[in-house]
Amino acid sequence: MLFSCIFSIGKEIVTGTINDTNSSFIASELTRLGIGNRFIISTDDDEKDITETFLYFLPKVDIVITTGGLGPTFDDITLACIAKALNRKLVLSESSYRKIKEFYDRLHKEGKIDSPGMNPKREKMAYIPEGAVELENSVGAASGVYIKHEGKHIFCLPGVPSEMRPMFEKQVKPILRELSSGCILSKTYEFEINDESVLGEFVDSLLDLGVHIKSLPTGFDSKTMGVRFTAHGRTEKECIERIEHAKKRLSELLDS
Amino acid sequence: MLFSCIFSIGKEIVTGTINDTNSSFIASELTRLGIGNRFIISTDDDEKDITETFLYFLPKVDIVITTGGLGPTFDDITLACIAKALNRKLVLSESSYRKIKEFYDRLHKEGKIDSPGMNPKREKMAYIPEGAVELENSVGAASGVYIKHEGKHIFCLPGVPSEMRPMFEKQVKPILRELSSGCILSKTYEFEINDESVLGEFVDSLLDLGVHIKSLPTGFDSKTMGVRFTAHGRTEKECIERIEHAKKRLSELLDS
Repeated sequence: MLFSCIFSIGKEIVTGTINDTNSSFIASELTRLGIGNRFIISTDDDEKDITETFLYFLPKVDIVITTGGLGPTFDDITLACIAKALNRKLVLSESSYRKIKEFYDRLHKEGKIDSPGMNPKREKMAYIPEGAVELENSVGAASGVYIKHEGKHIFCLPGVPSEMRPMFEKQVKPILRELSSGCILSKTYEFEINDESVLGEFVDSLLDLGVHIKSLPTGFDSKTMGVRFTAHGRTEKECIERIEHAKKRLSELLDS
Repeated sequence: MLFSCIFSIGKEIVTGTINDTNSSFIASELTRLGIGNRFIISTDDDEKDITETFLYFLPKVDIVITTGGLGPTFDDITLACIAKALNRKLVLSESSYRKIKEFYDRLHKEGKIDSPGMNPKREKMAYIPEGAVELENSVGAASGVYIKHEGKHIFCLPGVPSEMRPMFEKQVKPILRELSSGCILSKTYEFEINDESVLGEFVDSLLDLGVHIKSLPTGFDSKTMGVRFTAHGRTEKECIERIEHAKKRLSELLDS
């Protein structure tokens, strides 16, 4: 089983100006792909914090996915930080340069911006870590990147959700599907109990089934409670069999 | 200026089953209180991951606020992990024990649960790190805790938002307000520009004003763009003056 870390970068996240919906989206996709996501991390746009945090979590996982900090402004420093952390240079990508120039030329032709061609801020987005594979941005100017580094897989994606999601769907997911050898499945069922402190005793006795069982209490005014069963297996069928077995055992315990 | 880290704990977060709205709520409250939040971290309900992650980030900040993992089930291990990390024992809190017992007795009397009094799962919630101050839970059974440790301030709050929010508002915020000596203020204004790669040049020339200036692009179909000015100061008045000055300077640059 592969493990991952999601790392979202940006002052707007750590100050609570926006809610980080990118990370929960990516986390649920990783889970569906059978990858065990262990960490979700956010830092400010700070070189030291980004670099050190990345280097701290990288050894703990197989896959790191960053979002944010790929744009043209002074605080968009993700690729510079990741390159530094991996001891790689930032190099000009000619194909990225061409795409960025075409992007702004097109917007200028459409009358949407005042200046065509390149300027230093636009050029900045064409620099990527040496050896990185570009991930095309079908919506905005900045490419994402995929870096294979000493057995680790690192993806840097844009922070704007409308740019990140299609990049993830079309370019990251197929790579992850190749890498992952399993499946993680969750199913939630309602049980005729509303007290976690009682249900917990039964759940403890089922821990050896290899299925993660989590009560989802909705308060004591309800007579029932959702219980989520999560299993990891080689196939979806294997996951379902494990979940069904654990569900049956829990029902038996509650009925006894 | 004080710095903080928010640490949300739970499989439901790292697997993307739920979106972590607690962290953005707390982050925005910290910002309003003039505290610089540097990190938002989430881990699974894993003893090693919780303990190590907590110990890694603690030296970097003045305040750590955790959410989640205070309940009665086997995977609610936050206080055990924090106690271990700080080299403190978990001790029975008699007042917490009494409140938990009263909580379940009341539910039983109201006909909402089957068994009154205590059981091992309920008792578990009465154990808190030695020397911790209890934070009352006005909604659920598990108390939060506040620990002062070698100049650091550590708060452990429940994960259920309806329990966390009143605890934060009524008990955590007054303590933080005492600790914090400043104010952070953000204001967003619309400017007649839609291109970050052009605006960025002007923003760079204003970096020495000590105001964080961030463009908020909404796409090239719009003719304008929001620009957020964030200032830190001793008083709200000081923040507003800095922001107004930076706004004026940016307007002048764009008009020139």
